Amino acid sequence: MAGRINFQVDPDVMRHWRVEIDGPVASLWMDVDEKGGLFDGYELKLNSYDLGVDIELADVVQRMRFEHPEVRVVVMRSAKEKVFCAGANIRMLGAATHAHKVNFCKFTNETRNTMEAALEDSNQNYICAVRGSCAGGGYELALACNHIMLTDDSSSAVALPEVPLLAVLPGTGGLTRVTDKRKVRRDRADVFCSLEEGVRGRRAAEWGLVDEVFPNASFDERVASRATALADAAEVVADKGIRLTPLDRTFSDDGVEYSTVSVVTDRPGRRAMITIRGPEDAVPDTMDAFTQQGASAWMLRCARELDDAILHLRSNEDELGLIEFRTAGDPAGVLAHEALLLNNQDHWLAREVLGLWKRVLKRVDMTSRSLAAIVEHGSCFAGVLAELLWAADRSYMMMDEFEDDARPLAVVTLSPANFGEFPMGNGLSRLQTRFLGAPEQTDVLRQRAGDALEAEDADALGLVTYAFDDIDWDDEVRLFREERASFSPDAMTGMEANLRFAGPETMETRIFGRLTAWQNWIFQRPNAVGPEGALQRYGTGLRGQYDMQRV
Amino acid sequence: MAGRINFQVDPDVMRHWRVEIDGPVASLWMDVDEKGGLFDGYELKLNSYDLGVDIELADVVQRMRFEHPEVRVVVMRSAKEKVFCAGANIRMLGAATHAHKVNFCKFTNETRNTMEAALEDSNQNYICAVRGSCAGGGYELALACNHIMLTDDSSSAVALPEVPLLAVLPGTGGLTRVTDKRKVRRDRADVFCSLEEGVRGRRAAEWGLVDEVFPNASFDERVASRATALADAAEVVADKGIRLTPLDRTFSDDGVEYSTVSVVTDRPGRRAMITIRGPEDAVPDTMDAFTQQGASAWMLRCARELDDAILHLRSNEDELGLIEFRTAGDPAGVLAHEALLLNNQDHWLAREVLGLWKRVLKRVDMTSRSLAAIVEHGSCFAGVLAELLWAADRSYMMMDEFEDDARPLAVVTLSPANFGEFPMGNGLSRLQTRFLGAPEQTDVLRQRAGDALEAEDADALGLVTYAFDDIDWDDEVRLFREERASFSPDAMTGMEANLRFAGPETMETRIFGRLTAWQNWIFQRPNAVGPEGALQRYGTGLRGQYDMQRV
Repeated sequence: MAGRINFQVDPDVMRHWRVEIDGPVASLWMDVDEKGGLFDGYELKLNSYDLGVDIELADVVQRMRFEHPEVRVVVMRSAKEKVFCAGANIRMLGAATHAHKVNFCKFTNETRNTMEAALEDSNQNYICAVRGSCAGGGYELALACNHIMLTDDSSSAVALPEVPLLAVLPGTGGLTRVTDKRKVRRDRADVFCSLEEGVRGRRAAEWGLVDEVFPNASFDERVASRATALADAAEVVADKGIRLTPLDRTFSDDGVEYSTVSVVTDRPGRRAMITIRGPEDAVPDTMDAFTQQGASAWMLRCARELDDAILHLRSNEDELGLIEFRTAGDPAGVLAHEALLLNNQDHWLAREVLGLWKRVLKRVDMTSRSLAAIVEHGSCFAGVLAELLWAADRSYMMMDEFEDDARPLAVVTLSPANFGEFPMGNGLSRLQTRFLGAPEQTDVLRQRAGDALEAEDADALGLVTYAFDDIDWDDEVRLFREERASFSPDAMTGMEANLRFAGPETMETRIFGRLTAWQNWIFQRPNAVGPEGALQRYGTGLRGQYDMQRV
Repeated sequence: MAGRINFQVDPDVMRHWRVEIDGPVASLWMDVDEKGGLFDGYELKLNSYDLGVDIELADVVQRMRFEHPEVRVVVMRSAKEKVFCAGANIRMLGAATHAHKVNFCKFTNETRNTMEAALEDSNQNYICAVRGSCAGGGYELALACNHIMLTDDSSSAVALPEVPLLAVLPGTGGLTRVTDKRKVRRDRADVFCSLEEGVRGRRAAEWGLVDEVFPNASFDERVASRATALADAAEVVADKGIRLTPLDRTFSDDGVEYSTVSVVTDRPGRRAMITIRGPEDAVPDTMDAFTQQGASAWMLRCARELDDAILHLRSNEDELGLIEFRTAGDPAGVLAHEALLLNNQDHWLAREVLGLWKRVLKRVDMTSRSLAAIVEHGSCFAGVLAELLWAADRSYMMMDEFEDDARPLAVVTLSPANFGEFPMGNGLSRLQTRFLGAPEQTDVLRQRAGDALEAEDADALGLVTYAFDDIDWDDEVRLFREERASFSPDAMTGMEANLRFAGPETMETRIFGRLTAWQNWIFQRPNAVGPEGALQRYGTGLRGQYDMQRV
């Protein structure tokens, strides 16, 4: 493994993707640089990808929303001659640690989800024009688009060959999207997932694996006219975006410092402390003023920084099993900055920034570390930042005055945004999920929006797990930390994956819950990853040697 | 491991449970025989259980339905002095193979589900009276009951100590029922699942972990009055049951022979062939006549035999990765026998037999082997047996006449039962799940109920995967078998677990999909099962030694 994985991308030096914008239609060319792997030891042939390729893709999708709100349709296509995309790079997967495989799949899944959600969230419609072989993770990219067009020739096919070829699952949403999004008949899905060579032409359309099939000769024209038709039918929300300027961040041995977020690591204690600082500037008067501020506006800057901090901890600090969230600042300031966006949801940028918070908070939910919110005096768990209280597995709140602590008393302040603005993957708000057993409680809480709730009230209303005074605080918080640090990380991951997502399941939660869990299991099985397993033997000419016991 | 695991129980020689029936109220005493373990090497102390204990419990729940329909309330309680139940036996788990652990959890989960469903299906309400420690699998037994009463004393507590103590999950539905059935607030669930000692008394009730708490002195009286009150409020469906006589079965090296079911094993081909024979006798005229026949009535006998066959294959033949379902007989006979029950759903026994089929078919769905339905000439895939076509991963149907085959042409015949009588775990019928992408198709099919559909029609209507004539049949079926036998069993298990359950998730599918998958992953992780893992070290006085990397 190389050094620190960097999730920030300079769009001027992208290696693997090319964006061409033509009015409301963008072409997103996948053109993976074979020599551009994130680690040594493999070449990214045939448009295969690794985490580095996906980090760029995530950046493209994000910038498309903020920098090109005029784009209505994004056509994903391949710049290679005979291949659309061969999927995740197998040599990279074969050499990767279990932890890297799992993290890689999680990030790629998040990227597919955000691409897919661009239609509903940002009115940007990703469609896919497939020419050449489109296999495994390649077809999973297509599946995350909302419309798939396939060339009808002898070499163009869609395929999920993971099971027969590699003894692993199409784990980047493939199995779930085939059944739940494309609603392919299950026995056909079974056949499809067993065919190394995949399915071509009219049969692919008949089975619902793609939406349209056209001969090579007319393909480009058909794609262009489909894109134009979809773009013409879509509402235009803005003609000019804002620039997502580089993040202000400094790494050190002890953590990362951003303009609004600090990450401090405590390696002996196996924890990271994330502190989010509330806004210090006055809130912009209007959305025009907000747009002028652009990426430096607190609501946008803070979301981007928190997102980067989470991604950094996930990939680069895997022995820190506990993340503690703190906030510092004036709750009224957070609410004022948030209110500008809440009150201007007819403005595209207000919607985009709120949508970004939604995605960042989902990323927090999906982070397989123990999460705690520590509500200290002087903190600003208000509105959007209060969501962290319920994204966390537990919260601890300071009650009454503490000796030698002159900061304002700890409060929690709800805002209208806590009642549906930031749904979890299960489709419910965090408060709805929290009070699944007492749905009337959300109505009670709605009446308290805007009140600065001190610990006793916050506890009585069920907003925090524990409230402790000066006498008990240090011991209780320390005991929790020590306890958490002593548990098996695997058991924590499994427990949190089950407790965090009560209530309904959606395609999104099914991908992370059911599909990912099975894939993680398979990623531990000798039939896949052992020395004679299919993943290790891929490319050697030998097939995997399997233990035929069914469990 | 001992020899063949036997899923049939003689109720007269039960070792671990005792049933006392007092009118509409039954007491189900858990009194595990320490020396009665299914395998050597462990003692079932403190009412801990292994698969053998659970096989008896499943039998009790089944007999309660059929033999004691007069019972309205079953009070589960412990016959031991100071302990309710210590959960699954840890030494057994520590010594068990991965496959046995997984199969054990699946069967116990199915038993919990069927106990829980007894209220809706059979109007039998399981409640739980907890005195003494109720930990891990013990509390999961309580969770599967619909009402939990807890003694308020210093030693009675409910607990899920798996994570802190054993580094595994409460995987028999525990995590899912805490959040989805009991709807415990998620941060409290996090605290609860981290506490080795569990939660006692009023706090247990306040957090929703139990329903009622009473002092020791009045406990028995309160339990009795609660049971009586619930029984009095419930509708009486019958005053006398039927006897579930022992199954007629003969094991041989080549398989098992039942009166209506044959299991033939092909070990070199790694497959088992299950053939179900349709009824030969005339259908009973009335439900009285059916009740007279009792356990020998074809509809009941066949369901019990098929259930036993599936359980046998799962536990005793783990290298047979493919199960082929065949039927033989007259489709009209199947439909006639089924119609008697469908037309008499106000009769308790009709409902029970249909309910049994529902559960057996769910057991088929949950069987982690590749399933194929082979629709040959002379077969009777009609009504309830047609469900096997869509429980299977694929189906192959004979088309037109075959040389030297004088049997009647293969047909598929739908009945009203195929449209909701046998829902899958996801709450949908198998046809609804199959046609998730074309819901109108179920209406089309409903019009064809009763028609004997030959291959061309069945194929065109989407009822089978493939229809082949005499020329292609042998090759196609053989290729499929060979292909299936060549795939990694783990990848098959993961693929099928994802493709089989499209559409909505329920508590049941979440237990088998999300919770079980994570548990299986953990059951592979050194932190749990390695030589220094917590499961292996349990009872040695040493805690598990963990790799602290989070994945």
